[in-house]
Amino acid sequence: MILAIDFGGTKVALATADAAGTPLRRARLETRAADGAKRVVRRALDAAHRLVAATPGTLTAVGVSTFGVVRDGRVRLAPNVPGWEDLPLPDLVSADLGAPVRVDNDVNAATAAEARWGRLAGVGTGVYVNLGTGLGAGIVVGGRVVPGAHGAAGEIGYLLRRRGEPGCADGRAPLEEYASGSGLAARASAVLGEAVTAAGLFARRDDPRVAALLDDTAGTLGLAVANLATTLDPERVVLGGGMAAEPSLLPAIRATVARAVPFPPEVVTARFVDDAALIGAIALAAAGP
Amino acid sequence: MILAIDFGGTKVALATADAAGTPLRRARLETRAADGAKRVVRRALDAAHRLVAATPGTLTAVGVSTFGVVRDGRVRLAPNVPGWEDLPLPDLVSADLGAPVRVDNDVNAATAAEARWGRLAGVGTGVYVNLGTGLGAGIVVGGRVVPGAHGAAGEIGYLLRRRGEPGCADGRAPLEEYASGSGLAARASAVLGEAVTAAGLFARRDDPRVAALLDDTAGTLGLAVANLATTLDPERVVLGGGMAAEPSLLPAIRATVARAVPFPPEVVTARFVDDAALIGAIALAAAGP
Repeated sequence: MILAIDFGGTKVALATADAAGTPLRRARLETRAADGAKRVVRRALDAAHRLVAATPGTLTAVGVSTFGVVRDGRVRLAPNVPGWEDLPLPDLVSADLGAPVRVDNDVNAATAAEARWGRLAGVGTGVYVNLGTGLGAGIVVGGRVVPGAHGAAGEIGYLLRRRGEPGCADGRAPLEEYASGSGLAARASAVLGEAVTAAGLFARRDDPRVAALLDDTAGTLGLAVANLATTLDPERVVLGGGMAAEPSLLPAIRATVARAVPFPPEVVTARFVDDAALIGAIALAAAGP
Repeated sequence: MILAIDFGGTKVALATADAAGTPLRRARLETRAADGAKRVVRRALDAAHRLVAATPGTLTAVGVSTFGVVRDGRVRLAPNVPGWEDLPLPDLVSADLGAPVRVDNDVNAATAAEARWGRLAGVGTGVYVNLGTGLGAGIVVGGRVVPGAHGAAGEIGYLLRRRGEPGCADGRAPLEEYASGSGLAARASAVLGEAVTAAGLFARRDDPRVAALLDDTAGTLGLAVANLATTLDPERVVLGGGMAAEPSLLPAIRATVARAVPFPPEVVTARFVDDAALIGAIALAAAGP
């Protein structure tokens, strides 16, 4: 039996699976980030022990997906949960559960899930783009997820949109702040004078102000995806995350890719959406140490 | 003995080398692209036979670097030499010289040279950026040059600078037309009302119009390099090509990388400049089939 834990900003999801990766039992709990990293991890590990006890078999491997960037056994770039960046997460989980653990960030985990069981299976060079509350990408070369030198390959939320704008060193994530689900919602809330979510906006396309915001966001994401494809020359680009389900985004992104990229890749939606990072954590565990 | 041939837009360079890649003898000739692909290749192969005959040893492998994009034994995206795109270049060279041949585009070849003997030696994840008459990049993952699905990884000349601008499908290469040496020269010639080269501009920085053009180009290249680094998370970025020698470019690019990239890589100039693609062709041959 293998165990997967996905630490998300609002929920922690867990699953046990057989050696082939087929999910057996699932659980989820609130993250409650304000409690701090140690309590978040303790609650997750308690839930993990209960789930393992309720599943037949012996635990042989653990996969963990988390927000942030994973490097040298620590999580970086995860400012939302106090203490998360100082926590030796892989060692803690491995010691507590008595099994080897593989940790990666949620987007790379989702990429691993698509590479193993989804739309990137059998693809040599591919890109997974998460269009969700945040923005991120996973890069596949030779069928494997590319980590980069610091575990930060594919952190496209930090891409600059314009020369001279503030960047990561100024505490900013230019593309994410503008075109992620949360960035879009913030801009729309300012324009409309009321708090709205990205999902809520997609239902209000008849409002010309909303339509303009959505078209603008689609254009920005289209440029980002096209430039990723020009850079990497993938055979396929997979779009995941909540915004990938919005019907108007996919054709707009495809149109920009077709116009800009020398050898335009297929652009398709992901197989895994709601539980992509959890299935990804299963893929990490199933792939072995 | 191995043989390297570099097909460039104006010159064809050749070299023989020992099995370790140390150059032995060199030759060069005019490309004379207007003659058409068959004559260009014929002249190059005649020169190759002479060079091989003048070098002690037996020819065991050939490396070829060329403009364009190499895919499935043909060169694509090489509109400047009539007939070049229809020519089965690897098969022709291999049959004529009686040795196995490896072909890649000039920028990927230069990347292979830096990875084997230059500034990317021992680097797991790295990027080589050619800032020359054209713009291109080579991507190194796991110490190897990434080809992409169609041999076109790193074709950053086609990156979009703005939403909605014409792209590859419109016969354009937006970033290259703007910020390559030839693009800069064309813009400067229009501003100054006289024909100038990029190299000539760098000597005229005291003209405020020239300084503005150079600063603008440095800003554009800085954004492109920073976004490449954010996407790939390399440990090092190597700048090659004629413009990389311009003293003002490197600090401007480094400053943008430092501000924008989550884990800023080193940015250094290449070991090989004038003969990077030829040394790259030696690296291709030395790496074996």
